Amino acid sequence: MLTKVKAFAPASVANVSCGFDILGFPIDNIGDTIEIERNNTGKITINPIKGPGTLSTDPDKNVCGVIAKAMLKDLGKSDGIVISLTKGILPGSGLGSSAASSAVTAFAVNALYGNPFDGKKLVEYAMLGEELASGTKHADNVAPATLGGFIAIRSYDPFDLINIPVPENLYCAVIHPMVEVRTELSRNVLKKNVPLKTAIKQWGNVAGLIAGLFSSDYNLIGRSLEDHIVEPVRSLLISGYAEIREAAKNAGALGGGISGSGPSIFNLCEGEESAKAVANAMAKAADELKLPYEVHVSKISTTGCRFVE
Amino acid sequence: MLTKVKAFAPASVANVSCGFDILGFPIDNIGDTIEIERNNTGKITINPIKGPGTLSTDPDKNVCGVIAKAMLKDLGKSDGIVISLTKGILPGSGLGSSAASSAVTAFAVNALYGNPFDGKKLVEYAMLGEELASGTKHADNVAPATLGGFIAIRSYDPFDLINIPVPENLYCAVIHPMVEVRTELSRNVLKKNVPLKTAIKQWGNVAGLIAGLFSSDYNLIGRSLEDHIVEPVRSLLISGYAEIREAAKNAGALGGGISGSGPSIFNLCEGEESAKAVANAMAKAADELKLPYEVHVSKISTTGCRFVE
Repeated sequence: MLTKVKAFAPASVANVSCGFDILGFPIDNIGDTIEIERNNTGKITINPIKGPGTLSTDPDKNVCGVIAKAMLKDLGKSDGIVISLTKGILPGSGLGSSAASSAVTAFAVNALYGNPFDGKKLVEYAMLGEELASGTKHADNVAPATLGGFIAIRSYDPFDLINIPVPENLYCAVIHPMVEVRTELSRNVLKKNVPLKTAIKQWGNVAGLIAGLFSSDYNLIGRSLEDHIVEPVRSLLISGYAEIREAAKNAGALGGGISGSGPSIFNLCEGEESAKAVANAMAKAADELKLPYEVHVSKISTTGCRFVE
Repeated sequence: MLTKVKAFAPASVANVSCGFDILGFPIDNIGDTIEIERNNTGKITINPIKGPGTLSTDPDKNVCGVIAKAMLKDLGKSDGIVISLTKGILPGSGLGSSAASSAVTAFAVNALYGNPFDGKKLVEYAMLGEELASGTKHADNVAPATLGGFIAIRSYDPFDLINIPVPENLYCAVIHPMVEVRTELSRNVLKKNVPLKTAIKQWGNVAGLIAGLFSSDYNLIGRSLEDHIVEPVRSLLISGYAEIREAAKNAGALGGGISGSGPSIFNLCEGEESAKAVANAMAKAADELKLPYEVHVSKISTTGCRFVE
């Protein structure tokens, strides 16, 4: 049995346009890294967290602590654990920051004990972190961060995850404009009821998006990235949203939308060159708006959590 | 150029459970047959219609007449046409009766003039028939009746049809309980607004259904055939609905729902034997309820309209 595991989990985009609350995919080249070491203190300890953010190191108030505790309990282990987390994702970016920490914890603890749990069960453990961070056990970030690829959540009860194939040449360009969007506000602007006609449009686009992903039809993927329900209201909370999306579109993005509850904005692109051009165009738009930002270009990886050296 | 064409269009199931208003597929072994003959009278004539129903033979009040007229006009033809229609589908059954007549007309007139229009354009002509019959230009019956296969309508503006592959062994068992359901009533019971949470469940199931069809995952197809929006209210208008669906489920149906706006009930099944067992179970349930009925078992055909002898 291992006594020490080092692992990485990627950032992720949830609420993929029309796929609000049911779809997500990983952004491969940014994420959180964890080192977990077993000892016989019987205590869960979290070392000071490296990287951006000001997360608690109290094991009951930190997603890593809560998840590790639940897993140890289910395994009937009274071991101590020391967690060292390096954040590569800014909390509040809309890029699945808490999800990456949660996914990587579940993955690393599982490895430490000889992989007793399957991928779906790891996602369920990681959802405990989401519950702590946001109040709801949503899976649209933790599932792709854990398992990789495009993941659809068909249902929570019973919990049903679906792997959607990723076209070979599908890339994503993401910009994180450094503007604050309060998650509660972002949640509160959504109406509890939506017109049936609009909902029908939305699930027509979901059908198109899933079909486009299965058939590697980039044009269909692009046409289907339409969100008539959430984007129209939430985008108003993100300074520069319209200008940045317009710039991405003009630079050849297939389509895109708000990543998570924002402020990050994602665009799907055919090919790496296109994604780079889209990232540059978004950066230029943000420059013109005098917004600070970070951009990321990534293939849609089919790997989620993984070991590092 | 042909002077006479004889063709067939299949019945169809629209509103496929979670795919309300966006999905449809053909039922291959029942449908309408048309014979169209060109002459130089300059007039559209509709012979007395054979088969069930009491449809008008006035070319301006009959779907075949309206479609033929529009197509001749667009082609700049002043020919006369004699239409002989044999209905194989009872109007008001929820099995795409007007759609079959509409689809077969567009297909036959197109053939008569050397196929100037593509499949999508034929669907658009056929939608004129749906407009006459029901007041709205919906495509979820005419598209599968014309083109065959599972068809998703992503959008009406722009008009965007998506072919979803049909798993090799997918069959459908349909029962038409002979109970009257008024289409207006069926439409009026639907609420104009739906809870966002319910809509999300619905598009999660749409994602699952499309993924299941693409990957020939029969179990996933079955799990995804859940409709939280329309079935709960419309099914109340159909006598015996709960008993018949329960019987189908117990006999091994993957899942199902209301066909169109009812009263017909469809079930998808893996394999012909299973579909026959489901049809028998539904028939038995209808017998016990003392409801008159018809049952149909069909492979989900990837052929829509076709020529006959």
